[in-house]
Amino acid sequence: MSHFKSLTLEWSEERLILIDQRKLPIEEKYVECRNHEDVYLAIREMIVRGAPAIGATAAFGYLLGARELANASDEVFFDHMTTVKRRLSDSRPTAVNLFWALERMENVLFSNRSLNRKELIDSLEGAALSIAKEDIEINKALGRNGATVVRDGDGILTHCNAGALATVDYGTALGVMRAAAEQGKRIKIYADETRPYLQGARLTAWELIKSGIDVTLICDNMAGWVMKKGFIDLVLVGADRIAANGDSANKIGTYSIAILAQRHGIPFYIVAPLSTVDLTTVSGEEIPIEERSHSEITHLGNQQIAPEGVKCFNPAFDVTPSSLITGIITEKGIARPPYDVSLREMFEKNPEEVI
Amino acid sequence: MSHFKSLTLEWSEERLILIDQRKLPIEEKYVECRNHEDVYLAIREMIVRGAPAIGATAAFGYLLGARELANASDEVFFDHMTTVKRRLSDSRPTAVNLFWALERMENVLFSNRSLNRKELIDSLEGAALSIAKEDIEINKALGRNGATVVRDGDGILTHCNAGALATVDYGTALGVMRAAAEQGKRIKIYADETRPYLQGARLTAWELIKSGIDVTLICDNMAGWVMKKGFIDLVLVGADRIAANGDSANKIGTYSIAILAQRHGIPFYIVAPLSTVDLTTVSGEEIPIEERSHSEITHLGNQQIAPEGVKCFNPAFDVTPSSLITGIITEKGIARPPYDVSLREMFEKNPEEVI
Repeated sequence: MSHFKSLTLEWSEERLILIDQRKLPIEEKYVECRNHEDVYLAIREMIVRGAPAIGATAAFGYLLGARELANASDEVFFDHMTTVKRRLSDSRPTAVNLFWALERMENVLFSNRSLNRKELIDSLEGAALSIAKEDIEINKALGRNGATVVRDGDGILTHCNAGALATVDYGTALGVMRAAAEQGKRIKIYADETRPYLQGARLTAWELIKSGIDVTLICDNMAGWVMKKGFIDLVLVGADRIAANGDSANKIGTYSIAILAQRHGIPFYIVAPLSTVDLTTVSGEEIPIEERSHSEITHLGNQQIAPEGVKCFNPAFDVTPSSLITGIITEKGIARPPYDVSLREMFEKNPEEVI
Repeated sequence: MSHFKSLTLEWSEERLILIDQRKLPIEEKYVECRNHEDVYLAIREMIVRGAPAIGATAAFGYLLGARELANASDEVFFDHMTTVKRRLSDSRPTAVNLFWALERMENVLFSNRSLNRKELIDSLEGAALSIAKEDIEINKALGRNGATVVRDGDGILTHCNAGALATVDYGTALGVMRAAAEQGKRIKIYADETRPYLQGARLTAWELIKSGIDVTLICDNMAGWVMKKGFIDLVLVGADRIAANGDSANKIGTYSIAILAQRHGIPFYIVAPLSTVDLTTVSGEEIPIEERSHSEITHLGNQQIAPEGVKCFNPAFDVTPSSLITGIITEKGIARPPYDVSLREMFEKNPEEVI
């Protein structure tokens, strides 16, 4: 009977409990997932979001799927696990950590298929808990590595939420800010509100205020102007999928920020664990971009903010070409151009040496 | 007893009636202004917004001010008019049309000071009505001139609302779209929603749907991505003040769009009447940028969308340097770089020849 609890998720008494990120910061509510379908819906409906958080959540979803038919015959059970994996994979298309975590869970399933069912499920539980716990350690390593590019007094722009809530805990881009602040560096964060889902306004601002880090909220269209005014020394953002050549999918708007940063001579860093790097995706052109409901743009909660029936375009992500990226901060160090070489080298490093 | 009515404003029975742009498109409500203080508040609270619309509204505010003390002694009356002008000037700082219209009204006051009071007020009414009616003619001329840069099949990005609602009627940037559509050119508009005030979502989308022009609403942070995807052939935006060197203040976010357009090789045009050009402002650095209430970012109507007490930065405008501007479309033709020469030449043209 294992128990695990972080800001984003809790595994307790065979339930996965998620903080409902749709309700933050106005309400602190929690949602219980008792089976893999609950987890599918939680990811699809963005109760939980952020690539690393989605990965860990899906791992627990896989575990819950295994528990659903714990007493079935091998044939039924393993068929079911294929269905569970497919269903969870369908929840969202862009973040590769989802597929990475499910792949890792399936490997544990197959390599332990000779165990009895209880032992097999225990091994899956161990794997899901490892993914969650490792994520926190990885984020702390990201933070240590990334803090080397943060100078005392820096103004830092970030987009969306690459914080504790986007991961199991601590955060990627926000983890770097935490590490820099822990080192005594005075930093001033500018957080894009990040339309349409307002992850910056709702989640990043909330997290940074809670952590005592100086944060100023701006609208997305102010990013260029705050750079022009000299407020920004550094851009730190997360990623949902990084291709082998360094092209990086992240929250819609990141591409524009990268262009604006280059224009103003401001370093632009991606902060992400290696589980976000997908060497089988050759370039950004191959990354599928999710399009979400138009109601995310036309409504805010129940409040209508655009005319009835207006057409919308609502891509959830965009792809920043590697040529605009100063560096990719990973748990094993900072990859620099050319990324097709440096990212591969990161995977080959011995993690024990680095973390 | 004159009467005038357009989409944006109506002058009727000594009252100025404004469509309440804060409520559109959900409700079509009207606000009555019976004195200059009502007009001051209507401009400050953005019941009416958009540089040319603010100019015409202020002219009627000045007229209402004159009517307030119609029977006072000359000394009291002319002192009062100085106060009225100062008060109306204080409503918003950036759009120069406000000051231009008040200056024009004051010139009419002074040049007719020998008339009796009734005749003097009649002359002010005539001047306010002229400003309103000329604005529509100017916008139609802007439309004709601007339509020459629109090709059949073009995708056009616009920001904020430079439409009928931002003017007395017809619109500046949207006037160009109307003129192109009237010429049978098939165009597809992408409208930035324009946070925080959502003029694009609420006003531009509403106007274009009403006019039967194809419009797709996007969030501001998607502008770069729709350019990257090849959806945009042209950017058309309005302006709130154009300096003598062509630097143009417009709704916050315009500066970022201009950089993105240049990066993608997309022509970027400002569409504005010459009353928006301020030759006494040498460059954009001299343009005062209004900062508005943080609640515009943290709340949407009564709905809170950011954590309690978060710091914000909320500049209402930014300045696009002339180097990023392909052309400035005016009622007398399209000014091209170098703007310090071409804008001056526009003022010297005979309007009758052009319009």
